[in-house]
Amino acid sequence: MKFVEKLIEITRKKDSLLCIGLDTDAEKIPKKLANEKDRVFSFNKKIIDETNDLAAAYKINTAFYEANGVNGWISLSKTVDYIPDDVIIIADVKRGDIGNTAKMYAKAFFSELGADAVTVNPYLGGDSLTPFIEYSNKGVFILCLTSNPGAQDFQKLKINEKYLYQIIAEKVKIFNKNGNCGLVVGATFPEELKNIREIVPDMPFLIPGIGAQGGDLEKTIVYGTDSNNELALINSSRGIIYKSSGDDFAQAARKAAEELKNRINLFRKKKNNL
Amino acid sequence: MKFVEKLIEITRKKDSLLCIGLDTDAEKIPKKLANEKDRVFSFNKKIIDETNDLAAAYKINTAFYEANGVNGWISLSKTVDYIPDDVIIIADVKRGDIGNTAKMYAKAFFSELGADAVTVNPYLGGDSLTPFIEYSNKGVFILCLTSNPGAQDFQKLKINEKYLYQIIAEKVKIFNKNGNCGLVVGATFPEELKNIREIVPDMPFLIPGIGAQGGDLEKTIVYGTDSNNELALINSSRGIIYKSSGDDFAQAARKAAEELKNRINLFRKKKNNL
Repeated sequence: MKFVEKLIEITRKKDSLLCIGLDTDAEKIPKKLANEKDRVFSFNKKIIDETNDLAAAYKINTAFYEANGVNGWISLSKTVDYIPDDVIIIADVKRGDIGNTAKMYAKAFFSELGADAVTVNPYLGGDSLTPFIEYSNKGVFILCLTSNPGAQDFQKLKINEKYLYQIIAEKVKIFNKNGNCGLVVGATFPEELKNIREIVPDMPFLIPGIGAQGGDLEKTIVYGTDSNNELALINSSRGIIYKSSGDDFAQAARKAAEELKNRINLFRKKKNNL
Repeated sequence: MKFVEKLIEITRKKDSLLCIGLDTDAEKIPKKLANEKDRVFSFNKKIIDETNDLAAAYKINTAFYEANGVNGWISLSKTVDYIPDDVIIIADVKRGDIGNTAKMYAKAFFSELGADAVTVNPYLGGDSLTPFIEYSNKGVFILCLTSNPGAQDFQKLKINEKYLYQIIAEKVKIFNKNGNCGLVVGATFPEELKNIREIVPDMPFLIPGIGAQGGDLEKTIVYGTDSNNELALINSSRGIIYKSSGDDFAQAARKAAEELKNRINLFRKKKNNL
Protein backbone atom coordinates (compact mmCIF):
# COMPACT_ATOMS: atom_id res chain seq x y z
CA MET A 1 0.00 0.00 0.00
CA LYS A 2 1.24 3.52 -0.82
CA PHE A 3 2.34 5.59 2.16
CA VAL A 4 -0.23 8.36 1.66
CA GLU A 5 -3.07 5.83 1.33
CA LYS A 6 -1.96 4.14 4.54
CA LEU A 7 -1.75 7.51 6.29
CA ILE A 8 -5.27 8.51 5.21
CA GLU A 9 -6.71 5.11 6.07
CA ILE A 10 -5.25 5.19 9.60
CA THR A 11 -6.20 8.85 10.12
CA ARG A 12 -9.83 8.09 9.25
CA LYS A 13 -10.07 4.78 11.08
CA LYS A 14 -8.76 6.32 14.31
CA ASP A 15 -10.05 9.82 13.71
CA SER A 16 -6.59 11.01 14.68
CA LEU A 17 -3.79 13.24 13.43
CA LEU A 18 -1.78 12.60 16.57
CA CYS A 19 1.87 11.62 16.26
CA ILE A 20 3.63 10.64 19.46
CA GLY A 21 7.37 11.20 19.60
CA LEU A 22 9.23 8.37 21.27
CA ASP A 23 12.24 10.55 22.14
CA THR A 24 13.07 8.30 25.03
CA ASP A 25 15.91 9.63 27.14
CA ALA A 26 17.50 6.80 29.16
CA GLU A 27 18.03 9.25 32.02
CA LYS A 28 14.36 10.17 32.29
CA ILE A 29 12.95 6.66 32.72
CA PRO A 30 10.66 6.46 35.79
CA LYS A 31 12.12 4.72 38.84
CA LYS A 32 9.53 1.98 38.50
CA LEU A 33 11.50 0.61 35.53
CA ALA A 34 14.97 1.09 37.02
CA ASN A 35 15.64 -2.63 37.30
CA GLU A 36 14.47 -3.62 33.84
CA LYS A 37 17.17 -5.03 31.57
CA ASP A 38 16.29 -2.76 28.65
CA ARG A 39 14.70 0.20 30.41
CA VAL A 40 14.22 2.24 27.25
CA PHE A 41 12.32 -0.55 25.51
CA SER A 42 10.31 -1.35 28.66
CA PHE A 43 9.30 2.31 28.87
CA ASN A 44 8.35 2.47 25.18
CA LYS A 45 6.37 -0.77 25.46
CA LYS A 46 4.21 0.65 28.25
CA ILE A 47 3.71 3.93 26.37
CA ILE A 48 2.78 2.04 23.18
CA ASP A 49 0.39 -0.26 25.08
CA GLU A 50 -1.42 2.75 26.51
CA THR A 51 -1.51 5.00 23.45
CA ASN A 52 -1.51 2.97 20.22
CA ASP A 53 -5.29 3.23 19.76
CA LEU A 54 -5.04 7.03 19.91
CA ALA A 55 -1.97 7.62 17.75
CA ALA A 56 -1.93 7.79 13.96
CA ALA A 57 1.87 7.65 14.10
CA TYR A 58 4.89 7.20 16.32
CA LYS A 59 7.91 9.31 15.47
CA ILE A 60 11.11 7.79 16.74
CA ASN A 61 13.99 10.20 16.99
CA THR A 62 17.02 7.95 16.60
CA ALA A 63 19.37 10.38 18.37
CA PHE A 64 17.98 9.30 21.74
CA TYR A 65 18.83 5.67 20.90
CA GLU A 66 22.19 6.34 19.23
CA ALA A 67 23.26 8.11 22.45
CA ASN A 68 23.25 4.64 24.08
CA GLY A 69 25.44 3.02 21.45
CA VAL A 70 24.86 -0.62 20.51
CA ASN A 71 22.30 -1.07 23.32
CA GLY A 72 20.37 1.91 22.03
CA TRP A 73 20.23 0.42 18.57
CA ILE A 74 18.80 -2.77 20.11
CA SER A 75 16.11 -0.79 22.01
CA LEU A 76 15.25 1.03 18.79
CA SER A 77 14.86 -2.14 16.79
CA LYS A 78 12.71 -3.81 19.49
CA THR A 79 10.53 -0.71 19.72
CA VAL A 80 9.85 -0.64 15.98
CA ASP A 81 9.03 -4.36 16.00
CA TYR A 82 6.59 -3.86 18.87
CA ILE A 83 4.51 -1.10 17.26
CA PRO A 84 1.19 -2.44 15.89
CA ASP A 85 0.56 -2.37 12.13
CA ASP A 86 -2.14 0.26 12.38
CA VAL A 87 0.25 2.98 13.50
CA ILE A 88 2.60 4.72 11.06
CA ILE A 89 6.27 4.45 12.09
CA ILE A 90 8.36 7.50 11.25
CA ALA A 91 12.11 7.15 11.71
CA ASP A 92 13.06 10.73 12.55
CA VAL A 93 16.64 10.55 11.37
CA LYS A 94 17.10 13.79 9.37
CA ARG A 95 19.81 12.14 7.28
CA GLY A 96 21.22 13.68 4.13
CA ASP A 97 24.25 12.49 2.17
CA ILE A 98 25.50 11.93 -1.38
CA GLY A 99 23.78 9.26 -3.52
CA ASN A 100 25.75 6.10 -2.71
CA THR A 101 25.55 6.91 1.01
CA ALA A 102 21.89 7.96 0.94
CA LYS A 103 21.16 4.54 -0.55
CA MET A 104 22.66 2.97 2.58
CA TYR A 105 20.58 5.18 4.87
CA ALA A 106 17.42 4.30 2.94
CA LYS A 107 18.28 0.63 3.34
CA ALA A 108 18.98 1.14 7.06
CA PHE A 109 15.62 2.68 7.90
CA PHE A 110 13.24 1.22 5.31
CA SER A 111 14.56 -2.33 4.81
CA GLU A 112 16.56 -3.08 7.94
CA LEU A 113 14.59 -1.20 10.61
CA GLY A 114 11.24 -1.42 8.82
CA ALA A 115 9.96 2.16 9.23
CA ASP A 116 7.05 3.43 7.10
CA ALA A 117 8.62 6.85 6.65
CA VAL A 118 11.76 8.85 7.39
CA THR A 119 12.70 12.48 7.83
CA VAL A 120 15.54 13.73 5.60
CA ASN A 121 17.56 16.93 5.29
CA PRO A 122 17.51 18.62 1.85
CA TYR A 123 20.79 20.56 2.10
CA LEU A 124 22.65 18.16 -0.24
CA GLY A 125 20.02 18.52 -2.97
CA GLY A 126 17.95 16.26 -5.20
CA ASP A 127 20.40 13.39 -5.66
CA SER A 128 20.62 12.97 -1.88
CA LEU A 129 16.83 12.51 -1.69
CA THR A 130 16.33 10.19 -4.69
CA PRO A 131 17.40 6.93 -2.96
CA PHE A 132 14.69 7.49 -0.33
CA ILE A 133 12.03 8.57 -2.83
CA GLU A 134 12.72 5.44 -4.89
CA TYR A 135 11.13 3.36 -2.13
CA SER A 136 7.79 4.30 -3.64
CA ASN A 137 5.62 2.74 -0.91
CA LYS A 138 7.49 4.55 1.86
CA GLY A 139 7.07 8.15 3.00
CA VAL A 140 9.84 10.77 2.83
CA PHE A 141 9.36 13.85 5.00
CA ILE A 142 11.83 16.51 3.90
CA LEU A 143 12.85 19.26 6.32
CA CYS A 144 11.36 22.51 5.07
CA LEU A 145 10.97 24.94 7.96
CA THR A 146 11.95 23.58 11.35
CA SER A 147 10.51 24.61 14.71
CA ASN A 148 13.70 25.83 16.42
CA PRO A 149 15.09 29.39 16.71
CA GLY A 150 17.99 28.46 14.38
CA ALA A 151 15.48 28.11 11.53
CA GLN A 152 16.07 31.86 11.13
CA ASP A 153 19.77 31.41 10.31
CA PHE A 154 19.50 29.82 6.87
CA GLN A 155 15.97 28.56 6.17
CA LYS A 156 14.61 32.11 6.27
CA LEU A 157 17.23 33.69 4.05
CA LYS A 158 15.59 35.58 1.21
CA ILE A 159 16.51 34.70 -2.36
CA ASN A 160 15.04 37.25 -4.72
CA GLU A 161 11.43 37.36 -3.60
CA LYS A 162 11.36 33.96 -1.92
CA TYR A 163 12.65 32.42 1.28
CA LEU A 164 14.87 29.35 1.12
CA TYR A 165 12.19 27.19 2.77
CA GLN A 166 9.73 28.19 0.03
CA ILE A 167 12.21 27.24 -2.67
CA ILE A 168 12.67 23.90 -0.97
CA ALA A 169 8.90 23.29 -0.88
CA GLU A 170 8.69 24.12 -4.60
CA LYS A 171 11.62 21.83 -5.44
CA VAL A 172 10.16 18.96 -3.42
CA LYS A 173 6.98 19.33 -5.46
CA ILE A 174 9.12 18.59 -8.53
CA PHE A 175 11.05 15.74 -6.84
CA ASN A 176 7.73 14.13 -5.81
CA LYS A 177 7.37 11.86 -8.86
CA ASN A 178 6.34 8.86 -6.75
CA GLY A 179 3.78 10.80 -4.72
CA ASN A 180 5.51 9.83 -1.47
CA CYS A 181 7.13 13.10 -0.37
CA GLY A 182 6.02 15.10 2.62
CA LEU A 183 7.40 18.13 4.44
CA VAL A 184 8.46 18.85 7.99
CA VAL A 185 7.10 22.25 8.98
CA GLY A 186 7.31 23.58 12.53
CA ALA A 187 4.19 24.72 14.38
CA THR A 188 6.13 27.68 15.74
CA PHE A 189 5.76 29.63 12.47
CA PRO A 190 2.00 29.61 11.65
CA GLU A 191 2.04 32.21 8.88
CA GLU A 192 4.79 30.36 7.09
CA LEU A 193 2.92 27.08 7.58
CA LYS A 194 -0.06 28.63 5.79
CA ASN A 195 2.14 29.77 2.96
CA ILE A 196 3.81 26.36 2.56
CA ARG A 197 0.41 24.60 2.56
CA GLU A 198 -0.56 26.85 -0.37
CA ILE A 199 2.54 25.72 -2.31
CA VAL A 200 1.83 22.00 -1.75
CA PRO A 201 -1.89 21.57 -1.04
CA ASP A 202 -1.80 17.75 -1.27
CA MET A 203 1.39 16.80 0.50
CA PRO A 204 1.48 15.26 4.00
CA PHE A 205 3.02 17.49 6.66
CA LEU A 206 4.81 16.34 9.77
CA ILE A 207 4.40 19.16 12.26
CA PRO A 208 6.56 19.30 15.40
CA GLY A 209 6.77 22.26 17.76
CA ILE A 210 3.56 22.29 19.72
CA GLY A 211 3.91 21.54 23.43
CA ALA A 212 7.39 22.18 24.86
CA GLN A 213 8.28 24.43 21.93
CA GLY A 214 5.16 26.60 22.20
CA GLY A 215 3.48 26.36 18.78
CA ASP A 216 -0.18 27.49 18.54
CA LEU A 217 -2.36 24.39 18.04
CA GLU A 218 -5.41 26.05 16.50
CA LYS A 219 -3.42 27.87 13.83
CA THR A 220 -1.40 24.71 13.20
CA ILE A 221 -4.59 22.77 12.41
CA VAL A 222 -6.24 25.50 10.38
CA TYR A 223 -3.15 26.21 8.28
CA GLY A 224 -1.39 22.85 8.33
CA THR A 225 -4.10 20.35 7.32
CA ASP A 226 -5.24 19.91 3.73
CA SER A 227 -8.71 20.71 2.36
CA ASN A 228 -10.09 17.52 3.99
CA ASN A 229 -8.62 18.53 7.37
CA GLU A 230 -6.13 15.71 7.21
CA LEU A 231 -2.66 14.95 5.66
CA ALA A 232 -0.99 16.43 8.72
CA LEU A 233 0.62 14.63 11.63
CA ILE A 234 0.84 16.76 14.76
CA ASN A 235 3.73 15.61 16.88
CA SER A 236 4.17 15.83 20.62
CA SER A 237 7.05 14.08 22.36
CA ARG A 238 8.01 15.40 25.79
CA GLY A 239 4.46 16.70 26.46
CA ILE A 240 3.14 13.14 26.32
CA ILE A 241 5.80 10.62 27.25
CA TYR A 242 7.18 12.59 30.22
CA LYS A 243 3.82 13.84 31.47
CA SER A 244 4.48 12.04 34.76
CA SER A 245 7.68 10.60 36.13
CA GLY A 246 5.83 8.57 38.73
CA ASP A 247 4.46 5.04 38.64
CA ASP A 248 1.48 6.32 36.64
CA PHE A 249 3.64 7.53 33.73
CA ALA A 250 1.91 5.37 31.10
CA GLN A 251 -1.60 6.32 32.22
CA ALA A 252 -0.57 9.98 32.37
CA ALA A 253 0.81 9.67 28.83
CA ARG A 254 -2.49 8.18 27.69
CA LYS A 255 -4.42 11.03 29.27
CA ALA A 256 -2.17 13.66 27.63
CA ALA A 257 -2.40 11.87 24.27
CA GLU A 258 -6.19 11.66 24.48
CA GLU A 259 -6.49 15.34 25.40
CA LEU A 260 -4.26 16.41 22.55
CA LYS A 261 -6.02 14.16 20.04
CA ASN A 262 -9.36 15.65 21.10
CA ARG A 263 -8.10 19.24 20.99
CA ILE A 264 -6.76 18.60 17.48
CA ASN A 265 -10.14 17.22 16.41
CA LEU A 266 -11.97 20.15 17.98
CA PHE A 267 -9.95 22.55 15.83
CA ARG A 268 -10.51 20.34 12.76
CA LYS A 269 -14.28 20.63 13.33
CA LYS A 270 -13.98 24.35 13.96
CA LYS A 271 -12.06 24.71 10.69
CA ASN A 272 -14.86 22.82 8.93
CA ASN A 273 -17.30 25.45 10.13
CA LEU A 274 -15.13 28.42 9.16
CA MET B 1 44.41 18.34 23.70
CA LYS B 2 42.44 20.65 21.40
CA PHE B 3 41.29 19.11 18.14
CA VAL B 4 43.20 21.49 15.87
CA GLU B 5 46.42 20.96 17.85
CA LYS B 6 46.02 17.20 17.56
CA LEU B 7 45.32 17.50 13.84
CA ILE B 8 48.44 19.60 13.24
CA GLU B 9 50.62 17.35 15.43
CA ILE B 10 49.55 14.23 13.52
CA THR B 11 49.82 15.92 10.14
CA ARG B 12 53.42 16.94 10.87
CA LYS B 13 54.48 13.71 12.56
CA LYS B 14 53.24 11.62 9.64
CA ASP B 15 53.76 14.24 6.95
CA SER B 16 50.26 13.40 5.77
CA LEU B 17 46.97 15.05 4.92
CA LEU B 18 45.46 11.75 3.91
CA CYS B 19 42.06 10.79 5.26
CA ILE B 20 40.86 7.28 4.46
CA GLY B 21 37.13 6.74 4.32
CA LEU B 22 36.03 3.49 5.90
CA ASP B 23 32.76 3.35 3.94
CA THR B 24 32.69 -0.39 4.26
CA ASP B 25 29.88 -1.97 2.29
CA ALA B 26 29.08 -5.44 3.65
CA GLU B 27 28.39 -6.60 0.09
CA LYS B 28 31.82 -5.63 -1.18
CA ILE B 29 33.92 -7.57 1.32
CA PRO B 30 36.51 -9.77 -0.47
CA LYS B 31 35.76 -13.49 -0.60
CA LYS B 32 38.77 -14.17 1.59
CA LEU B 33 36.79 -12.85 4.59
CA ALA B 34 33.48 -14.48 3.72
CA ASN B 35 33.56 -16.83 6.68
CA GLU B 36 34.55 -14.28 9.31
CA LYS B 37 31.96 -13.69 12.02
CA ASP B 38 32.07 -9.89 11.69
CA ARG B 39 33.23 -9.46 8.10
CA VAL B 40 32.97 -5.67 8.14
CA PHE B 41 35.18 -5.35 11.20
CA SER B 42 37.62 -7.99 9.90
CA PHE B 43 37.92 -6.01 6.67
CA ASN B 44 38.42 -2.70 8.49
CA LYS B 45 41.01 -4.29 10.80
CA LYS B 46 43.14 -5.40 7.84
CA ILE B 47 42.80 -2.01 6.16
CA ILE B 48 43.74 -0.21 9.38
CA ASP B 49 46.72 -2.53 9.98
CA GLU B 50 48.06 -1.77 6.52
CA THR B 51 47.38 1.98 6.36
CA ASN B 52 47.44 3.55 9.83
CA ASP B 53 51.03 4.80 9.49
CA LEU B 54 50.06 6.67 6.29
CA ALA B 55 46.74 8.17 7.34
CA ALA B 56 46.26 11.37 9.31
CA ALA B 57 42.59 10.45 9.72
CA TYR B 58 39.98 7.79 9.18
CA LYS B 59 36.53 9.02 8.22
CA ILE B 60 33.83 6.55 9.10
CA ASN B 61 30.57 7.06 7.28
CA THR B 62 28.02 5.60 9.66
CA ALA B 63 25.43 5.00 6.91
CA PHE B 64 27.36 1.92 5.79
CA TYR B 65 27.13 0.51 9.32
CA GLU B 66 23.56 1.58 10.06
CA ALA B 67 22.51 -0.33 6.92
CA ASN B 68 23.36 -3.52 8.85
CA GLY B 69 21.26 -2.63 11.89
CA VAL B 70 22.44 -3.70 15.34
CA ASN B 71 25.31 -5.77 13.89
CA GLY B 72 26.48 -2.72 11.96
CA TRP B 73 26.56 -0.64 15.10
CA ILE B 74 28.72 -3.34 16.72
CA SER B 75 31.15 -3.34 13.76
CA LEU B 76 31.30 0.47 13.96
CA SER B 77 32.10 0.48 17.64
CA LYS B 78 34.79 -2.21 17.29
CA THR B 79 36.35 -0.32 14.39
CA VAL B 80 36.62 2.93 16.34
CA ASP B 81 38.14 1.10 19.31
CA TYR B 82 40.71 -0.54 17.04
CA ILE B 83 42.05 2.66 15.44
CA PRO B 84 45.41 3.72 16.99
CA ASP B 85 45.60 6.99 18.95
CA ASP B 86 47.77 8.70 16.38
CA VAL B 87 45.02 8.75 13.75
CA ILE B 88 42.13 11.25 13.93
CA ILE B 89 38.71 9.54 13.94
CA ILE B 90 35.99 11.45 12.12
CA ALA B 91 32.45 10.15 12.53
CA ASP B 92 30.92 11.19 9.22
CA VAL B 93 27.34 11.37 10.40
CA LYS B 94 26.04 14.65 8.89
CA ARG B 95 23.50 14.97 11.69
CA GLY B 96 21.49 18.13 12.31
CA ASP B 97 18.58 18.53 14.71
CA ILE B 98 17.09 20.90 17.29
CA GLY B 99 19.06 21.58 20.49
CA ASN B 100 17.86 18.85 22.85
CA THR B 101 18.27 16.26 20.09
CA ALA B 102 21.62 17.58 18.88
CA LYS B 103 22.84 17.11 22.45
CA MET B 104 22.01 13.41 22.16
CA TYR B 105 23.86 13.11 18.85
CA ALA B 106 26.91 14.84 20.33
CA LYS B 107 26.81 12.38 23.22
CA ALA B 108 26.42 9.46 20.80
CA PHE B 109 29.49 10.25 18.71
CA PHE B 110 31.83 12.06 21.11
CA SER B 111 31.18 10.31 24.45
CA GLU B 112 29.69 6.95 23.53
CA LEU B 113 31.53 6.14 20.28
CA GLY B 114 34.66 8.16 21.11
CA ALA B 115 35.26 9.97 17.81
CA ASP B 116 37.63 12.95 17.64
CA ALA B 117 35.37 14.85 15.24
CA VAL B 118 32.01 14.69 13.51
CA THR B 119 30.45 16.08 10.38
CA VAL B 120 27.19 18.03 10.87
CA ASN B 121 24.56 19.61 8.63
CA PRO B 122 23.93 23.34 9.15
CA TYR B 123 20.38 23.55 7.74
CA LEU B 124 18.79 23.84 11.21
CA GLY B 125 21.00 26.78 12.17
CA GLY B 126 23.22 27.82 15.06
CA ASP B 127 21.35 26.19 17.94
CA SER B 128 21.61 22.81 16.20
CA LEU B 129 25.42 23.14 16.08
CA THR B 130 26.03 24.47 19.61
CA PRO B 131 25.79 21.11 21.44
CA PHE B 132 28.60 19.77 19.24
CA ILE B 133 30.74 22.91 19.48
CA GLU B 134 30.46 22.81 23.27
CA TYR B 135 32.71 19.73 23.27
CA SER B 136 35.61 22.12 23.00
CA ASN B 137 38.31 19.46 22.53
CA LYS B 138 36.43 17.78 19.70
CA GLY B 139 36.27 18.84 16.04
CA VAL B 140 33.04 19.84 14.28
CA PHE B 141 33.13 19.79 10.47
CA ILE B 142 30.09 21.64 9.15
CA LEU B 143 28.82 20.91 5.64
CA CYS B 144 29.52 23.95 3.51
CA LEU B 145 29.72 22.94 -0.15
CA THR B 146 29.38 19.23 -0.82
CA SER B 147 30.94 17.29 -3.68
CA ASN B 148 27.77 15.91 -5.31
CA PRO B 149 25.77 17.30 -8.27
CA GLY B 150 22.86 18.16 -5.91
CA ALA B 151 25.09 20.81 -4.29
CA GLN B 152 23.74 23.02 -7.08
CA ASP B 153 20.14 22.75 -5.87
CA PHE B 154 20.34 24.79 -2.67
CA GLN B 155 23.97 25.38 -1.61
CA LYS B 156 24.60 27.44 -4.74
CA LEU B 157 21.50 29.61 -4.52
CA LYS B 158 22.45 33.29 -4.67
CA ILE B 159 21.35 35.58 -1.86
CA ASN B 160 22.04 39.19 -2.81
CA GLU B 161 25.68 39.01 -3.88
CA LYS B 162 26.58 35.81 -2.03
CA TYR B 163 25.94 32.12 -2.41
CA LEU B 164 24.35 30.18 0.43
CA TYR B 165 27.55 28.20 1.02
CA GLN B 166 29.47 31.46 1.47
CA ILE B 167 26.95 32.70 4.01
CA ILE B 168 27.34 29.42 5.87
CA ALA B 169 31.14 29.76 5.92
CA GLU B 170 30.79 33.30 7.29
CA LYS B 171 28.30 32.21 9.96
CA VAL B 172 30.48 29.29 11.05
CA LYS B 173 33.31 31.79 11.54
CA ILE B 174 31.04 33.51 14.08
CA PHE B 175 29.89 30.23 15.69
CA ASN B 176 33.54 29.17 16.10
CA LYS B 177 34.02 30.53 19.63
CA ASN B 178 35.82 27.40 20.82
CA GLY B 179 38.15 27.25 17.83
CA ASN B 180 36.98 23.73 17.00
CA CYS B 181 34.89 24.24 13.86
CA GLY B 182 35.89 23.07 10.42
CA LEU B 183 34.16 22.91 7.05
CA VAL B 184 33.36 20.16 4.59
CA VAL B 185 34.13 21.43 1.10
CA GLY B 186 34.04 19.17 -1.95
CA ALA B 187 37.06 18.86 -4.24
CA THR B 188 34.72 18.94 -7.23
CA PHE B 189 34.39 22.74 -7.05
CA PRO B 190 37.97 24.12 -6.97
CA GLU B 191 37.13 27.80 -7.57
CA GLU B 192 34.62 27.74 -4.77
CA LEU B 193 37.13 25.96 -2.53
CA LYS B 194 39.55 28.83 -3.12
CA ASN B 195 36.89 31.35 -2.25
CA ILE B 196 35.87 29.53 0.95
CA ARG B 197 39.53 29.27 2.05
CA GLU B 198 39.72 33.07 1.73
CA ILE B 199 36.73 33.45 4.06
CA VAL B 200 38.20 31.16 6.75
CA PRO B 201 41.99 31.08 6.32
CA ASP B 202 42.61 29.21 9.60
CA MET B 203 39.86 26.61 9.72
CA PRO B 204 40.44 22.90 9.06
CA PHE B 205 38.78 21.58 5.89
CA LEU B 206 37.59 18.07 5.30
CA ILE B 207 37.70 17.60 1.54
CA PRO B 208 35.90 14.67 -0.11
CA GLY B 209 35.36 14.25 -3.84
CA ILE B 210 38.71 13.29 -5.29
CA GLY B 211 38.90 9.77 -6.71
CA ALA B 212 35.51 8.24 -7.66
CA GLN B 213 33.90 11.68 -7.79
CA GLY B 214 36.54 13.22 -10.04
CA GLY B 215 37.90 16.24 -8.12
CA ASP B 216 41.23 17.75 -9.27
CA LEU B 217 43.90 16.94 -6.68
CA GLU B 218 46.39 19.68 -7.50
CA LYS B 219 43.81 22.45 -7.31
CA THR B 220 42.39 20.90 -4.16
CA ILE B 221 45.78 21.14 -2.44
CA VAL B 222 46.66 24.59 -3.73
CA TYR B 223 43.29 26.09 -2.83
CA GLY B 224 42.22 23.92 0.09
CA THR B 225 45.25 23.95 2.43
CA ASP B 226 46.08 26.89 4.68
CA SER B 227 49.17 29.12 4.42
CA ASN B 228 51.29 26.34 6.01
CA ASN B 229 50.02 23.81 3.44
CA GLU B 230 48.11 21.96 6.11
CA LEU B 231 44.73 22.15 7.95
CA ALA B 232 43.13 20.10 5.21
CA LEU B 233 42.21 16.43 5.23
CA ILE B 234 41.92 14.96 1.76
CA ASN B 235 39.53 12.03 1.82
CA SER B 236 39.46 8.99 -0.39
CA SER B 237 37.17 6.07 0.37
CA ARG B 238 36.34 3.75 -2.53
CA GLY B 239 39.61 4.57 -4.33
CA ILE B 240 41.57 3.05 -1.46
CA ILE B 241 39.56 0.43 0.38
CA TYR B 242 38.15 -1.24 -2.75
CA LYS B 243 41.30 -0.96 -4.83
CA SER B 244 41.37 -4.75 -5.12
CA SER B 245 38.65 -7.26 -4.37
CA GLY B 246 41.13 -10.13 -4.34
CA ASP B 247 43.13 -11.67 -1.53
CA ASP B 248 45.58 -8.77 -1.78
CA PHE B 249 42.93 -6.13 -0.92
CA ALA B 250 44.76 -4.78 2.14
CA GLN B 251 48.13 -4.53 0.37
CA ALA B 252 46.44 -2.89 -2.61
CA ALA B 253 44.78 -0.42 -0.25
CA ARG B 254 48.18 0.38 1.27
CA LYS B 255 49.67 0.96 -2.15
CA ALA B 256 46.79 3.26 -3.16
CA ALA B 257 47.02 5.13 0.15
CA GLU B 258 50.77 5.59 -0.19
CA GLU B 259 50.46 6.84 -3.76
CA LEU B 260 47.77 9.33 -2.81
CA LYS B 261 49.66 10.54 0.26
CA ASN B 262 52.74 11.11 -1.91
CA ARG B 263 50.81 12.87 -4.67
CA ILE B 264 49.26 15.16 -2.07
CA ASN B 265 52.71 15.97 -0.67
CA LEU B 266 54.08 16.57 -4.15
CA PHE B 267 51.44 19.24 -4.71
CA ARG B 268 52.09 20.70 -1.26
CA LYS B 269 55.76 21.09 -2.20
CA LYS B 270 54.81 22.50 -5.58
CA LYS B 271 52.52 25.03 -3.85
CA ASN B 272 55.46 26.01 -1.61
CA ASN B 273 57.44 26.92 -4.71
CA LEU B 274 54.63 28.88 -6.36
